[in-house]
Amino acid sequence: MSDDLRHMRHALSLAARGLGNTWPNPAVGCVLVKEGRVIARGWTQPGGRPHAEAMALAAAGPAARGATAYVTLEPCAHHGQTPPCADALIAAGVTRVVVALQDPDPRVDGGGIARLRAAGIAVTTDVMRTEAQRQQAGFLHRVRRGRPLLTLKLATSLDGRIATATGESRWITGPAARRLVHGMRLEHDAVLVGGGTARTDDPDLTVRGFGPVRQPVRVVWSRHLDLPLDGRLARTAREVPVWLCHGGDASPDLTAAWEGLGARLIPLDTGRARQIDPAAALDALAEAGITRVFCEGGGALAASLLAGDLVDRLVTFQAGLALGAEGRPALGAMGVDRLADAPRFVLAQTRQVGPDAMHVWERRA
Amino acid sequence: MSDDLRHMRHALSLAARGLGNTWPNPAVGCVLVKEGRVIARGWTQPGGRPHAEAMALAAAGPAARGATAYVTLEPCAHHGQTPPCADALIAAGVTRVVVALQDPDPRVDGGGIARLRAAGIAVTTDVMRTEAQRQQAGFLHRVRRGRPLLTLKLATSLDGRIATATGESRWITGPAARRLVHGMRLEHDAVLVGGGTARTDDPDLTVRGFGPVRQPVRVVWSRHLDLPLDGRLARTAREVPVWLCHGGDASPDLTAAWEGLGARLIPLDTGRARQIDPAAALDALAEAGITRVFCEGGGALAASLLAGDLVDRLVTFQAGLALGAEGRPALGAMGVDRLADAPRFVLAQTRQVGPDAMHVWERRA
Repeated sequence: MSDDLRHMRHALSLAARGLGNTWPNPAVGCVLVKEGRVIARGWTQPGGRPHAEAMALAAAGPAARGATAYVTLEPCAHHGQTPPCADALIAAGVTRVVVALQDPDPRVDGGGIARLRAAGIAVTTDVMRTEAQRQQAGFLHRVRRGRPLLTLKLATSLDGRIATATGESRWITGPAARRLVHGMRLEHDAVLVGGGTARTDDPDLTVRGFGPVRQPVRVVWSRHLDLPLDGRLARTAREVPVWLCHGGDASPDLTAAWEGLGARLIPLDTGRARQIDPAAALDALAEAGITRVFCEGGGALAASLLAGDLVDRLVTFQAGLALGAEGRPALGAMGVDRLADAPRFVLAQTRQVGPDAMHVWERRA
Repeated sequence: MSDDLRHMRHALSLAARGLGNTWPNPAVGCVLVKEGRVIARGWTQPGGRPHAEAMALAAAGPAARGATAYVTLEPCAHHGQTPPCADALIAAGVTRVVVALQDPDPRVDGGGIARLRAAGIAVTTDVMRTEAQRQQAGFLHRVRRGRPLLTLKLATSLDGRIATATGESRWITGPAARRLVHGMRLEHDAVLVGGGTARTDDPDLTVRGFGPVRQPVRVVWSRHLDLPLDGRLARTAREVPVWLCHGGDASPDLTAAWEGLGARLIPLDTGRARQIDPAAALDALAEAGITRVFCEGGGALAASLLAGDLVDRLVTFQAGLALGAEGRPALGAMGVDRLADAPRFVLAQTRQVGPDAMHVWERRA
C-alpha cells in the first residue's frame, strides 16, 4: 500500500503541472509502473489534450502491457475529441488501475471504472482521495455547482490599505510577493478584476517571468463596458484572451468596439441591479469552461464576492507599512453590522515572502 | 568561550522574568558559576530591588568566593537605596565577572566595570551584547532618548478593521490571541490607550489569568479628561495604578475627581494643538520611570504614534474574517500621500495563534 501512496503522490505532482492550463478539462496525472519501476509518466497537456493516460501510454509503448496505471482522476469513458482513456488502458494491456478520485462528470461518474473492471482489470479506488479532491477543487466546483473555484488575492499595508489617498499603489508589496502572484495567476484558468481597477490601474494581468506559458484568460466585470479602449487590455486582446462580462444595457458601440479589438463578450442579465451579479457572472465563466478564477480586486468587487459567499480561498499579502484611514481600503462596503454575520475563513498557510507576510485562508468547511 | 555563552544565555533568561515589573530599574539577570557549576541565580525583583547580583550573592553565601559572575548588564557603581553591586561582588570574593552590556546610565557608564578591575577582578565584556541590547531596549530608550520603548498592538479583521460599523468588536481575534496579549501586557511597564477607547470600550486593561502579578500601569491619554468617572478604570484606580496624561486646560473639577479616585495625573502643555503631543506624553512617562509601553489603540492614537515615528515594535493579529469598508479602521488618518512617506517596519516574527495569524514587525534600523 505504501507503494500505491508513493506512486499516486508522483501522479498528483504531475497533475499539478496542468493546473490553470487544461480548462475546460481537469488537470490529471498518470504514472505507469511495472515490477516496481516507473516506466512512463503523463499529465494533461495545455488546452486539455492529450489526456494524461494517453501521454503515458504513448511514452510506454508496448511496455505498458502488464503495468499498473496510477491516475489522479477516473479515466474517461465517453467519446469526446479523443477515444476514451478507459478503452486505451484496456487496449494497452494494463492489468491494474489505481484511481484517486471518481470523476463526477455525468458523462463518466463511475463509468470509466466499470468499463475497466468489465475488461478484467483490477481497480483500486480512493487512494489519496482527499489530496486529489483538493487539487481538483476547480473542476469539481464547475461540475457539481456550475461555478469555478474562486481565489481572492488581497495585497495590503499593515492596516488593510491597497493604495494611498492619492491612488499610489506601486508597490506596497515587494518583488518576491509580486513574483509569487504571477505564479498563482498561472495556476488559475482566469484572472479577474473589476471595471474600476481596469480603469484606474490599466493592468496587464499577464504572467511574466515564467518563460513561454499558456496565459490565463483575463476577465473584467464591467456593467457598462466603460473601459479604456486604448489601455493595455485593449491593445493586447488578440494575443492573450480578454473576456468582458457586461450588462445587457451596455452600449452597442462599446460591445462592437471591444469585439473589434478581439475581446470575447459575455452579456449578463443585470435587471435593475447597479452592478453585475457576481454569482451569475461566475456561473457564466464556468459555462464557458473556466474552473479556477484568481481575483485581484478591486475593493468593490472583492467585497461583493465575499458578501456573496463566493470566495473559496483568500490569499493575503501584508506589507510592513502603515497608510492610515485615508488610504484606499482593500474591501469596499459589505453591509456587515454584526461580527456573527462576517464571512469567516480558516488559516491554512503562513509564510514570509521577501519582506512581506503571506497567508492562505480557506472557506470554512 | 562556549561556556561563557551558555551561562550568559541562562542569565538573560533569568533577566527576562523581570521585564515589565522592575521599572524604573532595568531587568537584569545574574548567574554565579564555580568550577563549571551554577551555584546561584538572581534577577531583578518586582519594583526593581533587590538587584540581580544581590539576590544571587545572597543565595550563594560564602560559596561566592572564587566564583565567576555572569551579569546581563554592567553592575551598578553608585549608591542608590542599596550599596553598589560592584562593591558587593568585590566583597563577596568573586574573581571574574562576565558582562553582556555596559550600562549607559550616566551614574554607571563603565564605572562599575572600572571598579571591578581596580579591585583585581577579571572582567570580560560584550558577551551576547546584541541579545542583551534587545532585552534592554526599553531601559536603553529611556536612558538614551528619554523615551520608553513603544510596542503597538493591532488586532484586526483580514481587511484591517477593529470593529463593525455599529462598534461591535468582541471578539475579532480568538481566546489564544487574547491570552497572548495579556502576556504581552505583563512584559511591559505600562499599557496605554487613547481617551476614545477608554470611553467606548470601558476597558479594564489588567492582566488576567497569570496568577498574582505586578500589574502594569494603566495609562490613558485624554486632553480634556472626559473619561467615565464610573467606568472600570475609575472603579479600580486604587488597586492598579491609573495614570492620566491630560492637557493643561482640563477642568479642575475633573482633575480633582480623578485624583480623588486615586489616579495619578500627568499634565502636559498642549498649546493650541487639538490633541496631546504623543512625543511629549511618552517623554513624561519615561520621566516617571516607565521603560516599556504597550499601546492597544484606538485608531487615532495608533495613527498619531505611527505618524510621529514613535512605534518601535508592532504586533499585529489578523483574524480570518472580513468586515468591509464600513468597519472601524485600525488606524486613523495619518496624512500619508506617498508610499515613500509611509512608516515602514521589518517582519521579525510570524506565527499562528489559535485561529489567528500573528506578526511582530520592528522599526527599520
